[in-house]
Order: sequence, then C-alpha cells, then structure tokens
Amino acid sequence: MSETGPSALMPPRAFFDGRAQLVPFVRHADARGVLTPLDFGTLPFVVRRAFIVTQVPTGATRGGHAHRTAQQLLVCLRGRIDILMRAQQQEVLLTLGPETPGLLVDAGVWCRQTYVDPDSTLLVFASEAYDPGSYIDHWT
Amino acid sequence: MSETGPSALMPPRAFFDGRAQLVPFVRHADARGVLTPLDFGTLPFVVRRAFIVTQVPTGATRGGHAHRTAQQLLVCLRGRIDILMRAQQQEVLLTLGPETPGLLVDAGVWCRQTYVDPDSTLLVFASEAYDPGSYIDHWT
Repeated sequence: MSETGPSALMPPRAFFDGRAQLVPFVRHADARGVLTPLDFGTLPFVVRRAFIVTQVPTGATRGGHAHRTAQQLLVCLRGRIDILMRAQQQEVLLTLGPETPGLLVDAGVWCRQTYVDPDSTLLVFASEAYDPGSYIDHWT
Repeated sequence: MSETGPSALMPPRAFFDGRAQLVPFVRHADARGVLTPLDFGTLPFVVRRAFIVTQVPTGATRGGHAHRTAQQLLVCLRGRIDILMRAQQQEVLLTLGPETPGLLVDAGVWCRQTYVDPDSTLLVFASEAYDPGSYIDHWT
C-alpha cells in the first residue's frame, strides 16, 4: 500500500509485533454528556493501580522509561499528548487525544509523553503496584 | 464541637455508618505537573470496571440511582460536581473537585451527580462489570 493510501491516514493498530496496541473505546453520548466505559475484563492484564497526570506545563515531557515487567494502558482524557515509543530497534510516534483509542504498552517498551496542549490529562492503568525498581532506561 | 469549629470546615470522612466515605489522595506535584496515584490494594473492593464522564452540559444531572451490590469510587478530575446521596432515611450533600478526596459509595446508597462547572469530569471505579439489572431507584 502506498504511503498516501489508507495506511497513511489510519495508524496501524499494533506496533513492535503487538507489544504496543491501540485500543478503541466505545463512547456513549447523549444529551447529558459522554460516558466512556472500560471493562477491565477486556484488558490483557489485571489492573492493580491507576494514576492521573494533570497540570503539566505545555510542551513538557514525562515518562522516558520502560518497565521491567509492568503493562500499562494510557488514556488521554483531555488535550493532546505526543507519544514516542522505542522497542526492537524501532521508533514509533503517535498522538493521543480524547477522541483517539487508548494505548496498551507492554513491558520493555520505552515510552515518553509530551503534553502538547494546555490542560492535557493522562489516565494510566497499570498491572503492578508502584515499584521504583520497575523503571528501566533501556528497551528490548 | 460548635458549628463554626473545625468540624464545620472539614466535612466528616464517613456518612451513613461508613457506607459512604471520603478517600484522600496523595498528589505528587513537581515542575512537570501533578501525578495522583491510586493503588487498588487500598480499596475495599476489587476494581473490575472504570468509566469516565465528560462533556456534560453545565448544570445537568446524572446518576440518580443506587446499585444492588456494586461499590464505586467517584473521582472528580476537573470542574466541580455536587453529590446528593440518600440512605438510611438521611440525605447528604457534598461537592467533589480536583482538590477534594474521592468518594467511596457502597451498594444501596442512592447517588446523584450535578455537573456544576463547565468541563467537569468524573472518573468512576466500580466493583462490577456493567449490568443493567444492578440499578435500583430506591435506597436502603
């Protein structure tokens, strides 16, 4: 398929042989707003922790590491967040926003987030409780 | 303690004999923003589902029911959300915001949310997968 074909417009749903994947959400919209559910039974891991990142200065980066064993699901609730991932000697760049899918990231995939818009908000679901020993600078 | 003492400024942490409780969060703030973690091991239930409510018209209400068996944790990520709870022939009114604790709500406690500010955003963690049969109009 050429670079100007559909594959250039629709990002692939999986990267690094499936070690990172875009996960679409169903959004229930009506006159009272939008409800976006996430049934944890649909995830490939048991969620043991969540964290929310807010009030990040515009253009600041966070992350910049991989995890030894933890898996994560990244959901951008507001604004726009550029994601840089590295694994298997490749780099992938993509952008998350409130209308995009979430991003599943396996252990060993290095990931950095740049908060592009003011008030960009990230919600993360993780397979492990917080462990400072889980963070690694390299990727596999 | 008088009504003008500390008890009037700090809301009680538990309502309805502990069937609803305010749960404080730790917020890790630095120059790159604020990270608010939630370790699910600290909750009194296993989280099986999350949902996010966004784009609610200002002043609109949602909820207005209890659950037969499900427990929930309500977290206001943005804006201001007024909470009306009913149980045990009492009513409790309180307001959630990004700087307030979260609110644990047990089964049988009726709860309604009014989205006071524009862009108010609610994140809910629930002990059960979605089940339309779980919703009840009365309270206990």
